[in-house]
Amino acid sequence: EMYASLGVEDEPGKDRLWRAIRQEAKRDSEKEPALASFLYSTILAQSSLEDALSFHMANKLSSPTLLSTHLFELFRAAMDEDPTIGKAVRADILAVAERDPACCSFSQALLYFKGFIALEVHRVAHRLWQTGRRPLALALQSRVSENFHVDFHPAACIGSGLLLDHATGIVVGETAVVGDNCSMLHHVTLGGTGSAGGDRHPKIGDCVLIGASSTLLGPIEVGCGAKIGAGSVVLTDVPAYTTFVGVPARQLGEAKPPTSQP
Amino acid sequence: EMYASLGVEDEPGKDRLWRAIRQEAKRDSEKEPALASFLYSTILAQSSLEDALSFHMANKLSSPTLLSTHLFELFRAAMDEDPTIGKAVRADILAVAERDPACCSFSQALLYFKGFIALEVHRVAHRLWQTGRRPLALALQSRVSENFHVDFHPAACIGSGLLLDHATGIVVGETAVVGDNCSMLHHVTLGGTGSAGGDRHPKIGDCVLIGASSTLLGPIEVGCGAKIGAGSVVLTDVPAYTTFVGVPARQLGEAKPPTSQP
Amino acid sequence: EMYASLGVEDEPGKDRLWRAIRQEAKRDSEKEPALASFLYSTILAQSSLEDALSFHMANKLSSPTLLSTHLFELFRAAMDEDPTIGKAVRADILAVAERDPACCSFSQALLYFKGFIALEVHRVAHRLWQTGRRPLALALQSRVSENFHVDFHPAACIGSGLLLDHATGIVVGETAVVGDNCSMLHHVTLGGTGSAGGDRHPKIGDCVLIGASSTLLGPIEVGCGAKIGAGSVVLTDVPAYTTFVGVPARQLGEAKPPTSQP
Repeated sequence: EMYASLGVEDEPGKDRLWRAIRQEAKRDSEKEPALASFLYSTILAQSSLEDALSFHMANKLSSPTLLSTHLFELFRAAMDEDPTIGKAVRADILAVAERDPACCSFSQALLYFKGFIALEVHRVAHRLWQTGRRPLALALQSRVSENFHVDFHPAACIGSGLLLDHATGIVVGETAVVGDNCSMLHHVTLGGTGSAGGDRHPKIGDCVLIGASSTLLGPIEVGCGAKIGAGSVVLTDVPAYTTFVGVPARQLGEAKPPTSQP
Repeated sequence: EMYASLGVEDEPGKDRLWRAIRQEAKRDSEKEPALASFLYSTILAQSSLEDALSFHMANKLSSPTLLSTHLFELFRAAMDEDPTIGKAVRADILAVAERDPACCSFSQALLYFKGFIALEVHRVAHRLWQTGRRPLALALQSRVSENFHVDFHPAACIGSGLLLDHATGIVVGETAVVGDNCSMLHHVTLGGTGSAGGDRHPKIGDCVLIGASSTLLGPIEVGCGAKIGAGSVVLTDVPAYTTFVGVPARQLGEAKPPTSQP
Repeated sequence: EMYASLGVEDEPGKDRLWRAIRQEAKRDSEKEPALASFLYSTILAQSSLEDALSFHMANKLSSPTLLSTHLFELFRAAMDEDPTIGKAVRADILAVAERDPACCSFSQALLYFKGFIALEVHRVAHRLWQTGRRPLALALQSRVSENFHVDFHPAACIGSGLLLDHATGIVVGETAVVGDNCSMLHHVTLGGTGSAGGDRHPKIGDCVLIGASSTLLGPIEVGCGAKIGAGSVVLTDVPAYTTFVGVPARQLGEAKPPTSQP
């Protein structure tokens, strides 16, 4: 894999993903002067992927009363205090580049995928939520829903290597859990049932693929490697490596454990 | 109920909901300096809930050619001229706080729920539509669709105490009617059939719950207390207190009139 | 038809659609002072429909690093170099005015329908993509997805006279093709299957109507005059003049060729 040598496990000072992003930005800014100012300020003038992402997210979410300089410091501090965020960021960029055939560069994932930006703001908001800064976490959730049309409750626990493709309308509830290396298309809902509080949202295993416009409701379990077809409504547990489709969703064919997959 | 003592029926000068919102804003601005400027300007510096909401909506919808000061006056004047808007605003805030388990304060509903803000702008746009200022009503509809991803035609008649949860993608057509105390999740459509004009959208009774990604089409009647399951496509009348699910939607089980509900 | 005399086939200098739009803007700005500045700068101060649309799109998509003056020149140059864009723009405005019963003027389509604006930016982005300016095309796609919640890959080939009604959440993939005079409601997906590249998206014929929240997946063919019901998931070819509904979608009744339609 062209991606295997990049990013995720790199030692500090050998951040090959960040170097690849800078090379792409240099190439594109030379080729397209209309983008040069944007690419310079967002990538080429920054000294790390964490800086670049924090700068980009801060510009996207700022308002007259939530200044971009303050947001930058907030995002940057969260990534400094919790290095797992930076690792997840790299895994998320690789997930977009590997799994979305319409993505043709790492910088495209970083700069232009609103699902990616929404997800990384969520990672910071989740840390704020866990460290007791709940009003600020809710403010960020609201800004992300307004600007990127993706509504992750800051309490939701999200694994790394997540691809949110197209992303418009994705909703992930307060007690939802998502494993590593999952993919969700646009309009996916991980929602609750009823109006009672407590544990009420789906738990998604690793390597799960959820198709466009699918709605998963209640504290159900979706096993590792499962696939949910587009437009499904899932109200029951989904065993590992199975495919569920329909309204309500039912199993399609046999389970296909990983040895039988490419 | 903790909410029963608040808001809706209050006499002027005894607006307990507004006082509760101010107390929350004071507490949060002391706890989170990053939000202090926003909370001060939007809530603590305002002298009524109508002022605060008008200020907040005006900031969200302003543009270089639609100034926030002008929008503030427009919203404020509409609420002065038609006090039923202020009553509906209070019922809508209580609806969010009561029915959404992820909502933990009244100020959160007021400040951070894009469905709530979209709904209150609609209430003003509806008044403009009815008083002959149709171009301005359509301009507001368009701004709300761009900024909050909620598309209410200004002619639609909407009851009070409505919860629009998550709200992305909600569409409510020109001749739709929605009763009091309803809840709609994201991606709900109250749409027309065909391209002819005239009465062509659903009529929703009181206390109806419409699940995520449900599509209701045509001048159908949905009775009081009905529930529509997520992902349904509803093309027929729905009797009171029944539950409809599926594509196309069909009745699930027996009607459950209110005496059998909590 | 009141529309037959307008726009599309007009000779230069006899642009009756543009004149009608100016008359509407003049009427509305006299009637509603709150809109006068917006209508003057966007329509009355402009000297052609191409100028007005470029000005409007540039204002909507500008950012601190993507200046509205630069965007205006970019849009205007693309329309000068490729006059088929201007023809498609006129056909698209007429499509909204003719087929959406909630649209009551041409200027409303031009100014307030985010689906229309998203589509016209796509037409420019498609030209940039074809002429080798792919990074800029991808930047525009991303801005449109953020601002209008419509995600057209710039490589997608889209016919003229397209109505995108309400438009929130529409996704059209890289190898999709859409014919002339089609209508798509909100939440429609023309998506791919699997993660392999190459030809993987639907091919839609002329005069096709795709209902709200429908998902069409894979390199399927949808024949001329077909109708897809709301909330459908379409995974197979759809013959001309048939209606398909359901999850998965199946044919409803007989094909209705055009002689049997109004």
